[in-house]
Amino acid sequence: MFTAKVKSEIIKAIIDVTSPLVNEAKFNISKEGISIRAVDPAHVAMVDLELNKSAFDEYTAEPMELGIDLDKLSGIMRLALAGDIVSLEYDEKSNRLIVKIGNLVRRMGLIDTAGMPDSKVPNLNLPAKAVVKADELSRGVRASEAVSDHLALSMDKEAFELFAEGDTDTVNLKLPKDLLIELDAPGKFKSMFSIDYFSNMIKPVKNENPVTIHLGTDNPIRVDFDIAENNGHVTYLLAPRIESD
Amino acid sequence: MFTAKVKSEIIKAIIDVTSPLVNEAKFNISKEGISIRAVDPAHVAMVDLELNKSAFDEYTAEPMELGIDLDKLSGIMRLALAGDIVSLEYDEKSNRLIVKIGNLVRRMGLIDTAGMPDSKVPNLNLPAKAVVKADELSRGVRASEAVSDHLALSMDKEAFELFAEGDTDTVNLKLPKDLLIELDAPGKFKSMFSIDYFSNMIKPVKNENPVTIHLGTDNPIRVDFDIAENNGHVTYLLAPRIESD
Amino acid sequence: MFTAKVKSEIIKAIIDVTSPLVNEAKFNISKEGISIRAVDPAHVAMVDLELNKSAFDEYTAEPMELGIDLDKLSGIMRLALAGDIVSLEYDEKSNRLIVKIGNLVRRMGLIDTAGMPDSKVPNLNLPAKAVVKADELSRGVRASEAVSDHLALSMDKEAFELFAEGDTDTVNLKLPKDLLIELDAPGKFKSMFSIDYFSNMIKPVKNENPVTIHLGTDNPIRVDFDIAENNGHVTYLLAPRIESD
Repeated sequence: MFTAKVKSEIIKAIIDVTSPLVNEAKFNISKEGISIRAVDPAHVAMVDLELNKSAFDEYTAEPMELGIDLDKLSGIMRLALAGDIVSLEYDEKSNRLIVKIGNLVRRMGLIDTAGMPDSKVPNLNLPAKAVVKADELSRGVRASEAVSDHLALSMDKEAFELFAEGDTDTVNLKLPKDLLIELDAPGKFKSMFSIDYFSNMIKPVKNENPVTIHLGTDNPIRVDFDIAENNGHVTYLLAPRIESD
Repeated sequence: MFTAKVKSEIIKAIIDVTSPLVNEAKFNISKEGISIRAVDPAHVAMVDLELNKSAFDEYTAEPMELGIDLDKLSGIMRLALAGDIVSLEYDEKSNRLIVKIGNLVRRMGLIDTAGMPDSKVPNLNLPAKAVVKADELSRGVRASEAVSDHLALSMDKEAFELFAEGDTDTVNLKLPKDLLIELDAPGKFKSMFSIDYFSNMIKPVKNENPVTIHLGTDNPIRVDFDIAENNGHVTYLLAPRIESD
Repeated sequence: MFTAKVKSEIIKAIIDVTSPLVNEAKFNISKEGISIRAVDPAHVAMVDLELNKSAFDEYTAEPMELGIDLDKLSGIMRLALAGDIVSLEYDEKSNRLIVKIGNLVRRMGLIDTAGMPDSKVPNLNLPAKAVVKADELSRGVRASEAVSDHLALSMDKEAFELFAEGDTDTVNLKLPKDLLIELDAPGKFKSMFSIDYFSNMIKPVKNENPVTIHLGTDNPIRVDFDIAENNGHVTYLLAPRIESD
């Protein structure tokens, strides 16, 4: 049993966060809310999304798994205006998710979740942490796209730094401690990442909202931020690219 | 003899209504206004547009037919801003339509209307009628496009309903009598239509403006609405798709 | 030595003016400002841009030439918001242009200017002159694009005129003296030009801003306008198309 009402923006946020990594996702429904964990086909990135039932206008659920085609869900949500309330209901008899927007009813076929593995969030030791404003970070990433397909992130006691290098051009974004919301790096740490993946991971956060970055050396990166007016949380993990000479 | 001045929006409305069905149209000019009747190349849909001379700022005409390339006319109108007055004049000597916007003069070649047949509006017995707000209808049609290429429309005493069915998904829009501007159905009536065609037919009507739908069972649909601040009227007819099993 | 600070809009204006003709440009840096002169690969059009140091918030330079990839510069400038101050600095050691927007630093490789010829502005005798509002001219040019690939411009004592002729259609824009900011034509002058080139030349000027046109008969056209709040000036020259019968 699962029935909920929620602002269309919240569902759009779920789609924005998960669809860069996967086309289909397993929604883990519990009494306390919805969680999604998914790994991209190349096994380079993982998303872990938690949405508390407090994000919903109404929420009643028994534990279950729903396999959802994100393209389909995105298509329906394009019909909702900002502020529209969307009603979700699982129909057990037909194994359909019933999505209602106003007088419109879409009965959506579900995907068998048997083929969707349960991923575990790996235990990572990432000693350095910075909290950065989303638009600062986004500008650095977009600038990097013009010169390379990978970028290096580093932290030390003084600053967070982003660096990308092409054949003739370089991009550098250095944010000293006083321009960061938080910085805590016991030493110097540096890892390299695919710009494509990293760009998708920060895209859901807008304006001056905080993005938390955990970093090690030649280790994965962990990116955290809140969604749904702090009633939800997203964690991304991204494997490093190892520099070859 | 034909000379007229009119707001650019009115000409744009003529183009919006006719161009989904035909590239070229015969404008029937009379003392009382302009009418256009056209059938699409597949003979599935017909448009009948009447524009009273009261829609024009100035209007003087003797009866004549003008064969007009709608793409050309649309291209010129893109140069007009909202509120711009467009002047139209038929130049008999050169057989050109002279279109003026401000100081700009386009002399437009006309198409021989000899090859354009005079269509008759067929006499249809469509017993059910509903008047629906355009944006409600439009949302139902856009949702249907995602699951099928055809949709069913039905009316009974209680409600107007739109239904589309794909392999796994369905779309349903049920508008009970109190959400309609008008409903008059002596019994239950239902017909199926191509979504592409039906979508084009309601696209010219925006927001909460009323669209009148006349329906029978396995019969064409008739869609009516006003344009040009009620100085013009559009009737579309669309042949049904017959369900095959 | 070259170091400057300037509003992002000014750099964007330089790109808008030069990039329709060339992908790479030689920036001539002097103590007094920046000038660019470039000829398109087909040798049909020339641009001559002068930007006084008064256009800059800060400006210090010794004479030098910088070969700049306009696509690269345009890409960086897309990261700047309106009003953002951009800092430019030539780094002699690495032969890079250092472009800073906020905390973002792009080190940009430069192009060897040895292969970029010094063009001379030819001495032209163009007796007629008109000063036209940009949006009037732009509407005439856009209308002409629909009927032909070339247009004729003419001036006499009474009016400035633009004319384009296709197989069946013509476009005519006649601006009598009282609709022009200025008109000075000692006789009748007329030349024909490629619409593509001419369209690009007036695109950087918006709204009712003045464009000065110097015209002869079967001679190049000279188009002049100010940029950077009158701290810069642009001259375009465009070779005529000769009518063939």
